[in-house]
Amino acid sequence: MQDDVLGLLRKQTGTYMSGEAMAAKLGVSRIAIWKQIQSLKKHGYDISALKKNGYILRSSPDLMLPTEIKAGLQAKMFCPKIYYFPSIDSTNNFAKKLAQSGAPEGTLVLAEMQTQGKGRLGRSWFSPAGGSICFSLVLRPEVLPAYAQRFTLMAGIAVAAAIKKVCGAAIQLKWPNDLVIAGKGTYLKVGGILTEMGAESDRVNYLVTGIGLNVNIDKNKFPAELRSKVTSLKAQVPGNLPVVRVKLLQQILLELERYYKRFLAGDWKNIVHEYRSFEILAGKNVKIRQGEEIISGKVIEIDAEGRLVLKSKNQVFRVIAGEVTLQKNNFKL
Amino acid sequence: MQDDVLGLLRKQTGTYMSGEAMAAKLGVSRIAIWKQIQSLKKHGYDISALKKNGYILRSSPDLMLPTEIKAGLQAKMFCPKIYYFPSIDSTNNFAKKLAQSGAPEGTLVLAEMQTQGKGRLGRSWFSPAGGSICFSLVLRPEVLPAYAQRFTLMAGIAVAAAIKKVCGAAIQLKWPNDLVIAGKGTYLKVGGILTEMGAESDRVNYLVTGIGLNVNIDKNKFPAELRSKVTSLKAQVPGNLPVVRVKLLQQILLELERYYKRFLAGDWKNIVHEYRSFEILAGKNVKIRQGEEIISGKVIEIDAEGRLVLKSKNQVFRVIAGEVTLQKNNFKL
Repeated sequence: MQDDVLGLLRKQTGTYMSGEAMAAKLGVSRIAIWKQIQSLKKHGYDISALKKNGYILRSSPDLMLPTEIKAGLQAKMFCPKIYYFPSIDSTNNFAKKLAQSGAPEGTLVLAEMQTQGKGRLGRSWFSPAGGSICFSLVLRPEVLPAYAQRFTLMAGIAVAAAIKKVCGAAIQLKWPNDLVIAGKGTYLKVGGILTEMGAESDRVNYLVTGIGLNVNIDKNKFPAELRSKVTSLKAQVPGNLPVVRVKLLQQILLELERYYKRFLAGDWKNIVHEYRSFEILAGKNVKIRQGEEIISGKVIEIDAEGRLVLKSKNQVFRVIAGEVTLQKNNFKL
Repeated sequence: MQDDVLGLLRKQTGTYMSGEAMAAKLGVSRIAIWKQIQSLKKHGYDISALKKNGYILRSSPDLMLPTEIKAGLQAKMFCPKIYYFPSIDSTNNFAKKLAQSGAPEGTLVLAEMQTQGKGRLGRSWFSPAGGSICFSLVLRPEVLPAYAQRFTLMAGIAVAAAIKKVCGAAIQLKWPNDLVIAGKGTYLKVGGILTEMGAESDRVNYLVTGIGLNVNIDKNKFPAELRSKVTSLKAQVPGNLPVVRVKLLQQILLELERYYKRFLAGDWKNIVHEYRSFEILAGKNVKIRQGEEIISGKVIEIDAEGRLVLKSKNQVFRVIAGEVTLQKNNFKL
């Protein structure tokens, strides 16, 4: 009902609406309306009341509240239920628990900040309050476990496409899961994707795709050791104006839905082709670490299976997993 | 301490041991010994007491109690902790929860019966009290998710090897996860394996390999609709004597450990070769269902990756997952 009250206030932009009229429209008591107004105020909505005129919405908080996300959301198949947290250990961990308990496809877990945000290979991910978009989505495609990586690649393109549309900024992808922006002599990390799954040996039960994105974080707010390696979308926007996170998230969800539908319809071949157009490693000299082992070589391409094809000492490797470091000589060319 | 008390009673086969002597040996009070004796009796140990002579162990219950499993267990790397349940919904579900909470490799979940035992593809598995061996093992190999199926295949060989050694019965494997015995014009199912995992898209966090085995279940105890398709190990043993489940389980754990060590040492090529010698589908006409689709054809072999190679209308398919049904004409040959 909170969404409905907010909806009425939004329609009345700039004018008052009486509690009585709202109560009548929603078929509830005036006390019920009053309670919802108090709750909205607690969440940071600036709502004024005048005894004879009623209520007016003056401003909305910079929060990714479900009620904000749902207002005007074009994505249809996702978000049957949005779980929202001002702070959480990790949205992926919570989404995995939900998925294990049977949460349906499209369940969304959102947080303003993560205290133990996770990157790939057990690494941590910095996601402070107010500055990032971090969320996890439960998917239940009928695929083999080996296909899970495709969802990481696909989510990368979806996020890049959404950022292009909403912020005008061109971000690129570093295989397999980094969202980057070209900086001075290096690439700066602006986000990352972590896909986890529960599966039988030949069937995925659920996927959880988690996305962490630096949106409005000021450079000096990053931990010192990260500063030379990261950036925020805000820094890419004309005038460095803060990005409206709700709008960006809505677009990301819409793009995710589009790519997911294409994947389910068997369009992977074209999706991986698009991935290549965003990907930065092809043609570059890299080191790839796989556990203890390190291979150096030149990246030929990302192949049709989404693997990285590496030429090393005249041998060709098709790499499924690994940690890729760009060699410095790439920037001397 | 219960294990220690039981150990002392076992050493004294056929003679009494005083509570005082036991207390002295274990460095505890006589009351403590008495309490352990009461607890053992509750579990079904037949222990007699004579005031002046002490205690004597007359018989042990037909239960797979951790204390029984650990006595004389040769497998070393497994079982740092055994979770035992007289009844549980599903050992795999419990083991998955433990694994998610960080349980170490080798953690074992054992149950006398499962109320919601699981087979592949969400099917149920019948596992009544006293008649079956059902357990799940947590493993943490550093492998790609695509490799999880190898653990199903490997567990199959391990169980077959253990059954051969302990019961003398020759069981066979039906790709990917069935344990079968040739019956009249058909194969009867004697057990199955279900491997589940938690993983990132390119890294397994944990595997849970669950094994369900019909050991001492009388034919008429099976649900009517299953009777023509299943059998128990007992029916394969000379004189149809009940199989000592604890002994069989200990051997299975030992074989699992052997194959797992070989796998980790890079011996997969030989393991899959062994798998072929147990496997029944090669050369046979089958139907394979993959979701909505059904392919008919002749099985050529299980390939080096553990996939089923199927020739259908002069096309060769390499099948990773699916439900295989033997065509009836296999038995007319």
